[in-house]
Order: sequence, then C-alpha cells, then structure tokens
Amino acid sequence: MSAVRVGVIGLGRMGRLHAGNIAARVPALELVAASDPAPAAGDAASELGLPLAADWRDLVGDPTIDAVLVCSPSEAHAEQIVAAAEAGKHVFCEKPLDRSLDAIDRILAAVSAAGTILQVGFNRRADPNFGSLRARLDAGEIGQAWLLKITSRDPHPQAKEYVLGSGGLFVDMAIHDFDLARYLLGDVVAVSAAGAALVDPELADLGDVDTAVTTLSFQSGAIGVIDNCRQAAYGYDQRVEVHGALGMLAADNELATTVQVADETGFHRPRLPEFFLDRYGDAYARELELFAEAIAGAPPLADGRDGQHAVAMAVAAHTSLLERRTVALAEVLGEPVIS
Amino acid sequence: MSAVRVGVIGLGRMGRLHAGNIAARVPALELVAASDPAPAAGDAASELGLPLAADWRDLVGDPTIDAVLVCSPSEAHAEQIVAAAEAGKHVFCEKPLDRSLDAIDRILAAVSAAGTILQVGFNRRADPNFGSLRARLDAGEIGQAWLLKITSRDPHPQAKEYVLGSGGLFVDMAIHDFDLARYLLGDVVAVSAAGAALVDPELADLGDVDTAVTTLSFQSGAIGVIDNCRQAAYGYDQRVEVHGALGMLAADNELATTVQVADETGFHRPRLPEFFLDRYGDAYARELELFAEAIAGAPPLADGRDGQHAVAMAVAAHTSLLERRTVALAEVLGEPVIS
Amino acid sequence: MSAVRVGVIGLGRMGRLHAGNIAARVPALELVAASDPAPAAGDAASELGLPLAADWRDLVGDPTIDAVLVCSPSEAHAEQIVAAAEAGKHVFCEKPLDRSLDAIDRILAAVSAAGTILQVGFNRRADPNFGSLRARLDAGEIGQAWLLKITSRDPHPQAKEYVLGSGGLFVDMAIHDFDLARYLLGDVVAVSAAGAALVDPELADLGDVDTAVTTLSFQSGAIGVIDNCRQAAYGYDQRVEVHGALGMLAADNELATTVQVADETGFHRPRLPEFFLDRYGDAYARELELFAEAIAGAPPLADGRDGQHAVAMAVAAHTSLLERRTVALAEVLGEPVIS
Amino acid sequence: MSAVRVGVIGLGRMGRLHAGNIAARVPALELVAASDPAPAAGDAASELGLPLAADWRDLVGDPTIDAVLVCSPSEAHAEQIVAAAEAGKHVFCEKPLDRSLDAIDRILAAVSAAGTILQVGFNRRADPNFGSLRARLDAGEIGQAWLLKITSRDPHPQAKEYVLGSGGLFVDMAIHDFDLARYLLGDVVAVSAAGAALVDPELADLGDVDTAVTTLSFQSGAIGVIDNCRQAAYGYDQRVEVHGALGMLAADNELATTVQVADETGFHRPRLPEFFLDRYGDAYARELELFAEAIAGAPPLADGRDGQHAVAMAVAAHTSLLERRTVALAEVLGEPVIS
Repeated sequence: MSAVRVGVIGLGRMGRLHAGNIAARVPALELVAASDPAPAAGDAASELGLPLAADWRDLVGDPTIDAVLVCSPSEAHAEQIVAAAEAGKHVFCEKPLDRSLDAIDRILAAVSAAGTILQVGFNRRADPNFGSLRARLDAGEIGQAWLLKITSRDPHPQAKEYVLGSGGLFVDMAIHDFDLARYLLGDVVAVSAAGAALVDPELADLGDVDTAVTTLSFQSGAIGVIDNCRQAAYGYDQRVEVHGALGMLAADNELATTVQVADETGFHRPRLPEFFLDRYGDAYARELELFAEAIAGAPPLADGRDGQHAVAMAVAAHTSLLERRTVALAEVLGEPVIS
Repeated sequence: MSAVRVGVIGLGRMGRLHAGNIAARVPALELVAASDPAPAAGDAASELGLPLAADWRDLVGDPTIDAVLVCSPSEAHAEQIVAAAEAGKHVFCEKPLDRSLDAIDRILAAVSAAGTILQVGFNRRADPNFGSLRARLDAGEIGQAWLLKITSRDPHPQAKEYVLGSGGLFVDMAIHDFDLARYLLGDVVAVSAAGAALVDPELADLGDVDTAVTTLSFQSGAIGVIDNCRQAAYGYDQRVEVHGALGMLAADNELATTVQVADETGFHRPRLPEFFLDRYGDAYARELELFAEAIAGAPPLADGRDGQHAVAMAVAAHTSLLERRTVALAEVLGEPVIS
Repeated sequence: MSAVRVGVIGLGRMGRLHAGNIAARVPALELVAASDPAPAAGDAASELGLPLAADWRDLVGDPTIDAVLVCSPSEAHAEQIVAAAEAGKHVFCEKPLDRSLDAIDRILAAVSAAGTILQVGFNRRADPNFGSLRARLDAGEIGQAWLLKITSRDPHPQAKEYVLGSGGLFVDMAIHDFDLARYLLGDVVAVSAAGAALVDPELADLGDVDTAVTTLSFQSGAIGVIDNCRQAAYGYDQRVEVHGALGMLAADNELATTVQVADETGFHRPRLPEFFLDRYGDAYARELELFAEAIAGAPPLADGRDGQHAVAMAVAAHTSLLERRTVALAEVLGEPVIS
Repeated sequence: MSAVRVGVIGLGRMGRLHAGNIAARVPALELVAASDPAPAAGDAASELGLPLAADWRDLVGDPTIDAVLVCSPSEAHAEQIVAAAEAGKHVFCEKPLDRSLDAIDRILAAVSAAGTILQVGFNRRADPNFGSLRARLDAGEIGQAWLLKITSRDPHPQAKEYVLGSGGLFVDMAIHDFDLARYLLGDVVAVSAAGAALVDPELADLGDVDTAVTTLSFQSGAIGVIDNCRQAAYGYDQRVEVHGALGMLAADNELATTVQVADETGFHRPRLPEFFLDRYGDAYARELELFAEAIAGAPPLADGRDGQHAVAMAVAAHTSLLERRTVALAEVLGEPVIS
C-alpha cells in the first residue's frame, strides 16, 4: 500500500512538528510539499527537503497531493479547508477549526459535500494515558460516570501579542480540555464558567482571563469541571479524574524521570516536563497515523463535529463568564432550545 | 487553672463523640451534665457517668455550668444558643448553626449582646493536614493563591429519611467544604453550582442532588471549586489543592496503612478510611481544646460569622442550582448588592 | 477484672515512656511503684505520682506487686529478671535481655522454673503496619515468602559514649530488625554481615560500625537482608518488603503529613518523623496492652526465646563481620552444628 | 561525517534488536552485513535487507566493515573478539565477554594490542533514570555514598535449558547489576553471596540458584547489596537506591501508564512492564549511539575492564555461595591478595 501524499500549509511550530513526525515516524504518510508565505519558511522547507510554495492554493490545486495539513493561523482555516475539500483533498486541521461557528458550518457543509476526511488536531485523544482511561471507562470499570475533573495548566503564560490574536483562554487553551471532556464522557448540553486575570491582571483590559473554572453538564447527566491556568511554576500540569458508581479512574502527570532525592528538607521529585511537545510527543505522531487510517476507511480520531462542538463550548463558556449564568450549548449552536 | 464546666445538649452520635473526647483527651474541659429527651439517652448518660436532664433548659439554667455543647437537631439550635447566651454561657454548636439566615441573625445578636463565646463545629479547621497547608499558604510558599480545589466525597449515601430532614447536600454536607474554603482563602463573594441526583435518581423528586460542583469567587479575586458526591466506592475522599503564583500546595488523603501489595494484576493499596470519625478523630478532640482556649481569651477556631457565611454559601449554591446563574453572597445575606 | 499492679525498674527515657502510656492508655495495668538509684529520678516519680525506691529489690520484694517493667541499663537485666521471676512476678523487659547468651540462658531457666510471663520490648511487633503485613503474609497473599528486605536507619548517630556502652550496632540497633525478621518469616539459621564506620570513621577504633548489611538464611529456605545506618538526613527510615511466589508486600514509611508542595524546583514532601517515639508511639502502648493480655493467658508478643534469638543473631552478625564468613546460629547458641 | 559500517555476528534476539535500532534510530551506524550459521537466520536477514554469511569470519575478514556487533552465544565471544581486534575492527559485545576470566585476559590483550574500541553491552548504563541518578550522585547531592541497594527481578524464570547453558544466576542475570553497581560507585574489592533455588527447587540439582542476595564492599568503603530473583509476579522490577551523608537518591520503576483506579477494594496501579526490551528500549538504542561516539574518540560506555570486572564479581559471588565466606576480587582476578 503506497503512502498518502501530503502537503503542509504553514511551517510554523505545528507545521514543522508534523513534518518532522511524518518523516521519522509515520510511514503511511509521505510529505511532498509545503506552503508558507513567510520569508523565513524557506529555511524550514530546505531542512525538510520540501519544495515550498508561497501560496497555499498551489498545494490545494496540485492533483498529485492527496491530503493537506492545515497549520496556518486560524483565521485562514475555513477558506483553506473549504477549498481543499472542494478539490477532493483530505484535511488534517489544527485547532480551532475556526473561531466563528458560522464559518465552521461552512466547513462542515463543504466536507460533507465532498465526502472527504476532516480530522481536527485534538492530540490529547491520542495520548496513551487518556486512551487507557477511556478504554477502562468504556469497559465499565467504574460503572456509570458521575463526575469528570480535568486539570490543565500551562507552565508559562503566552506572550501578550499571542493572547490578543488567540481568541482568549477558552478557544485557545481550554478547547483541548473541552474536547477531551467530550472524548471521555460524550456530548455536553450546558456550560458555566468563572474566571479572572490573576497571572497578569492587565489581561482583564483585553477582555481575557488566565485562570478559569468551567463546569459542564453532560447529556448523560454527569457533571464535569475543568480548571485552567496560564501559569504553573512546577511545569505543564495535565490530569484527568473520573468518579463513578463503582469508583474512580485517574490519569496523573507523566514524570520526566523516576529519580527522587531525600535530604534533610524532605523528599523531592523533579518538576513536570516543561513543554507540551514533550508531554504529548507520542500523541502528535499517533494522531497522524490515525489520519492515515481514517483516509483508509477508519473513523477519524476527531471529526468536524468534534471540532465544532469544542468551539461551541468555548463560546458558551465565554458567554457564561460575561453574563454570569449557565449557557446551554443549543443556544450557541443555534439549535432549538429544549432545556 | 480549673477546668471549664460543660453540659452537653443532645446525646446523639456527635454528643457522645464530644463527651468521650472530653473525658479522654481534653483536660481543660470537664463534662458535668447532659440533656436529651430521648428515652434511649439514659444508657449513654450512665455510661458517661453523667446526670441526665430531659430538658435542655435545666442545663442552661444551671449556674454551676460554664458552657454548653449544642449537639441537638439543627431545628433546635437557635433557641438553645440564644437562651444559653442570655444565661451567660459559652456555646460550642454543631453545624449548621441554623438553616435559616434570619435565625442565625438572632443567634449572632444574642451572642454579641452577651459577650460570650460561640464556636461552630467546623472540625476540618482542626485537621493537622489542612492546618499545615494553611500555615504554608500564609507563609507565602506559593505566593498569591489563584485556584482552590476541594474534593469531598462520602463513602456511602445517607438514609433517605436523614437526607429529607438534613436540608440537602449543600447545607448538610458541602457546608464543611464551604467553611474550609473560607478558612483557607478568606471570604467568598459569589457562588455558582451545578448538581444532579446520580447516586440515587429518586432524590431529584425531593428537590435534592447527590453530586455537585460548586464554583466560588473569593474577595481576593481567587477562584475555587468544590466537587461533592454522596458515594465513593473507595472510601471517604477528602482532598485540598491550592494553586498559586509560585506553585501548588496539596493535602492528599490519609492512608489507613502504609502496606501495599504487588501481584500479577498490579500494585494495590487499601481503600480509604470509611468513616469521618476515623479521618477526623484528632480534629474532633482538637476543636474542643481550642474551645477551652477561646473561653480563656483566644479567638475561636470558627465563630458565629463563620457559621453564618457557610450557611449563606449553601443557600447561594442552592439558589444558583435552581436559577442556573451565579449568585452573589450579598443577595443572600441581605447586604446592599454592589457587584 | 482488676488491673495488674506494676512496678517500673528504671525511670530513664523508656521507663518514663512506659509509665506515661500505662497512665493514659493501658487501663489493664496499674502503675504503683518505681525504683531508680539516680538522684534525678525523684522528679520523674513525683510527676508520675509514684512512690520511689532507690533499690529495685524493694519492688521485687513487694508482695502487692504483680509485675515489673525492667527498663534499667542492660547490664542489670539478668539479675533483676531472675530475682523477679523467683519472686513470682511477671516481667516486661526492654531489649536486649542481656548481651551475654549465657546470662540469657540463666534468665530463661529462671522464668521457666517460675512459670511466669517474660515479654521482651520488641515494640515493632506491635506496629499496625508491620502487623498488617504479617497478617497478609500469613493469609497467603503472596504465597511462599522468598526474600525479606528491611531498611532501618536512624536520623542521627548516638553520642559516642552511648555507643561505647551499647554493645555496638548489631546488639543495640539492628536487634530490632533481627527480631522483626523472625516475627515475619520465622527462625534464622545463618547470618552474614558486612559493615563499616562511614558516618563516623572514629567508630572503627572502638571496634564498631555504623553502616551495615546483614544477610539472613531462614529455616524456611527464604533469604533476608537488612541494611542499617546510624544516620539518615531525611529522618527515621523504617521499611519492610517481602517478595514471594505470588508477588510482593511492602510497608513504606509513615508520613508526618499528607501535604506536599510543587514549585519551580519540583514536588516536595516533608522529611520523615525524626523520633522513634513518634514513629512507634502507638506500638509502645500496644505492647503493654499485650503484656496485660499475656498475664491473663495469651501468648506474649515476644517471649524469652525471641529475646534470646535476636541476641544470638547479633552475636552471629558481629562474628561474621570479624571473620568474613557466614555464621550458623547453632554455633552461637551452642547447639550441635549440623549445617 | 559518514556512518560507521557495521556487521552483526548472530541474529538471535539481541542481534535482531540491535539491527532494528541501528536502522531506525542510530544514523551514525550503518548495518551492512550479518552472519549466523542457523538456517532460520535467513528470514531475519532478508527482513533486515542484509547479506547473510554463515561464517562470522567473512565479516571479520571484510575490509569494508569497520566494526562488528558480537551477539553470538557467549562461548564464541572470545575467539570472535580476538579475531575482530586483530583485523582492526571495533567491537560491541553482548555480556558476558566470556565466562572464563582467562579468556577475558586474552580478549583484553588483543584489543589493547590492536588499539581498537571494545564496548560491552551493559545497557543499563544508558538508561536515563540511572544516568540521572549517577549525575546527581557525582554532583554531590547526597555527599559521600555509604550504601547502595539494587533490586533486580525478572518477571518469569527462563527455560531450564537456557539456564543450564547460561552459567547461572550470577554470570547470566546479576552481571548487569554488578556492572551497574560499579557504574554508580566504582570498583568493588570483595563480594559475599547467599542464594537458594526457591522459584524452582530443581535448579539446586544443577548447582544454580534463582534467588540471591549479594553484598559488595567498594574500594571507597561503601557497602552495596543486590537482591535478585528469577520471578516477580508483578513484572520486571528494577530499582536503585543510594544512601549517603546528605540523604538518599532513588530510581524507582517506570510505570506503563499513569492511570490508576480506585474501587471498593482500594487503589490499583497496573503491573510493571513485562519485558526488558520495553523497560530498556531507549537504553539499547542509546548504547549504540555511544558506541559510534566511542569509535569517534569518546570513552566507551563500558569497556573491556568493565566487562572483566563484572565477570570477576560473578565468579566471586559463586565462590562465596559455595564456600560461605567473603571473597576478595583480587583472589579471583589473580592479583596479589593484600586484604
């Protein structure tokens, strides 16, 4: 079986990461071209040994390319995905699909019409710990799930310029947790959020928060809660806990090393891995393997509807924060509100 | 220094627990009388070697008694505390002070007028782990506190008859967590809650929930979240975590034993202690020592205002659950709403 | 049932500890008299409210006394135990029974002739963690036991004067571990030891070591190993592990608190409890309860033969260290050597 | 810099493992040929895309080959290494170099005369946890090292036929621990061992043991102890602990997943990884990278003297077991015995 021929749109951090993974670890994909309008992209492309186009349309229009990885800024996603789908190409897109739910509607319509694969880059679904947790949940180890808790904290706040363009905590950072919640416990019907700018109080002037607690009501009746913070002095903190009728399943942080020291001040373990690329290194490679499998007929790890619902949850959380009330997802998705 | 002469009102589970602790572990208090209208109380009184009155007014009217422990059903608290204060007696009262904030206002007024001590039975403030956590927080080990997380789950649901009379999850069970939150991070200005009857769906018909997530906004700007459940298959789960500018402080569950076994299915530790009297055994004795110290002039571990605010938080949580919105504590306390 | 009337011989640290425990926690024993020739003992006796004799013979000769606690220097043990047994009194004796196996033979003969109870103060047998480990071992949780590992390290070295009179690491410190090994896996047939003076190299001039590894061959065929050190910067380290056909049972250190902090340097837990009285506080009270039960007919927690075998193991370990060879216990105990 | 051209002698489990690692993860080596007399080796060679010689002399005689990996049965090592060194080829050899110290003398002489690199396959030196532990030890985090403890247990006993040809527990299994001990704390001067056939009592008839405790005396004065067992129901158990003047450094087992479950029977973590290839997967690749670096001028991870001393320790342990005495390494190595 020959490899799927792939072009990557955008050679920023994520584009280069995926390109490297494909070359080293995903034989089912073959990276054949890249596009990026930035002058600096030339170096990255030569390092990867890829022909570089300034215009992404060259990739989408190339009949020898089967699929594209959309790793451009999120404002560009919708146009690129729609064009790629119309050209019959499968798409792997970094999150968020788009910050506008209307734009996402257009994306979903185009992909549906084309019958192509759309996979969203929710890498945590490919993490072996979370995967094991879900498998054991599905196997009934703790019976019916009642409570989900996700802790998700970055080691360091992003630069303010990045935050400004990112759409804010919910759609930029918590979106991964929103999707992980759905991956584990299914659809969410209502969202409530509290938040504040505590790491950097100036963020409040930009209408953003850096610390938040978001409560989720699942269709199943279960309740979930996510706590986010843009700074954790001890490293990248990623934990999940599900409490249910027969007990609790928990995925704790991975340790950088098993070595600990005991001295006159006590017992000491090293800080957590600093960087999401370290923590989720295997997951980033695995999600591309699954993209190849989806093109071959398997269901994608996270599809367009998953991408849509995570953004809807972010929009609902933001609305809840502003209006100090619980927001039904149906309001946001424009569906008839049944309550 | 001679011991404070104490009468106990109510010889139910809590009354007997405190009586036993005073006899064995709190030399600064001397238990001299008990009252309880129940016929069965006679046995408990003789076992404790105490004269038993059927009417609590006998204790409050006894000039040789310095203080009373109010361990009666919560409907009786207000009348008993007010009468005791008017008789110049110090009062230690089990939670909640009362389920009505109006009644609590009367309690606080009477105690204030009498100049006596009122201490509320928030035993978790006397737990050495939580005490150590607060001391380290106050010492600045993690800088400014941003996020508080409390997990509080009972091993088994209470009997339905108990729940019916208890006032529901928030005022009966979560009230301990509400107070612990204030003990650690100070006053709360707003509350939001989500909840469901998942352990026993029939509770929904009684207007109660058994699983809840409550979000708190502190005056300091920090955000808190409490998850409660009436059932935890693995035992009594009591954890606290505070995340702040310089890191995280966490108090994990106490283990019943340090023994673990590894076998062909993996590594196994025993379930958590079943019973709150085991988990907080030392704290129950310690809070009475601190009551004696308060009578001698120290500030009480938890005073009337603490008792009031915890009930106000419970009322706010209940309102939030019903109205699906964030509820300011000022609304509930009848203070001018400033937002 | 009336309490056993007890006299304590020696009001040093252990004598005072046991006296305090009897008063507060062991109703089945009643402490009625003390003896100690030291002038300073008067204060301790008045604090305990006990009549004080300068001569231990006064206690042994007192017909109203049922039992004595021998907490004197170990050189005095043999004479005191023999006299007490001859006077028909039960004896609880601190370890070691004596440093000479010949003297221990005389002790065992006297006790056997008198038909009285002799219990040796091997407090670790009364520790709930080790007790739980043994119960689970006996219940077959890990099948046949193959390997026993004991780690036993003191927080700080003893003063050199103490060490000089103590008989050295094996008979003073490791004796507890030797007994614990027998408590868990039964009789030992051979011992091999390696050791060095590393904490304080000057100890080598006194013929002692402060760091040692002792290997045990059990009658059952199992092998054991004990590592001892007179100094552990992180506190009093007391761990046990048994590996067997179906897995491993381990008793880890008890923690002083469940609180941990995470900061930019990592995750930190406090040091271990400093003091053996903290670590084994409950065990010291429990062993006296069991002494009362032994007087009432139950088998003692550790009897004269247990006291003898632990000393024999210490002697064998010391011989092994000097002669760089495995030493059979039969050699030391004067039994016919079968090998 | 062009890759080192390598031939692999022996396509058994280790030969195939190294071949796979070179292809996927070690660009500094290029595998160009294989030899193996077994008829089944043809399949492995084609799968690896390698020309296969039946006679290893073909590889050693091939002037285009720079280095060989000796993965043949250990009886063949000496002749192959000597021939390779005489042909000017660098050698990576699986442990043990040889079971005879005389043969190892010949190996060392040949390699020394040729001035080529000889690296022994002590993969644990390349494990990141043990590497981190040693770096922190060398950095003085716990001051002078006093006590080393290594736990090393296989999940399942080897087939009896394998054991028969393997040279027994010490030279086949414990040799890795002997080398790890030297890697961490330096040269060993004396060895004492106790052992028994407990997993499979029939092994005793073959003169072997399956459970052993080996005590080491280091030149530095420190003491070490290794416990080995051929069976551990809970998986492959690999732990190291070093205790010293300022505290303790410990490397615990790696976990297969961070997920744990709590249910009514307690808290449960999965068993340890089953297989040494899982546990040390990265280390096997890393040791080959370091072989390439050694050829380029760096010191090898483990050289001929390391290979020699580990075998000498195994011989000393076996002698100690038989003669029930401490055996000086100098006796075994034929050096003048100074004691």
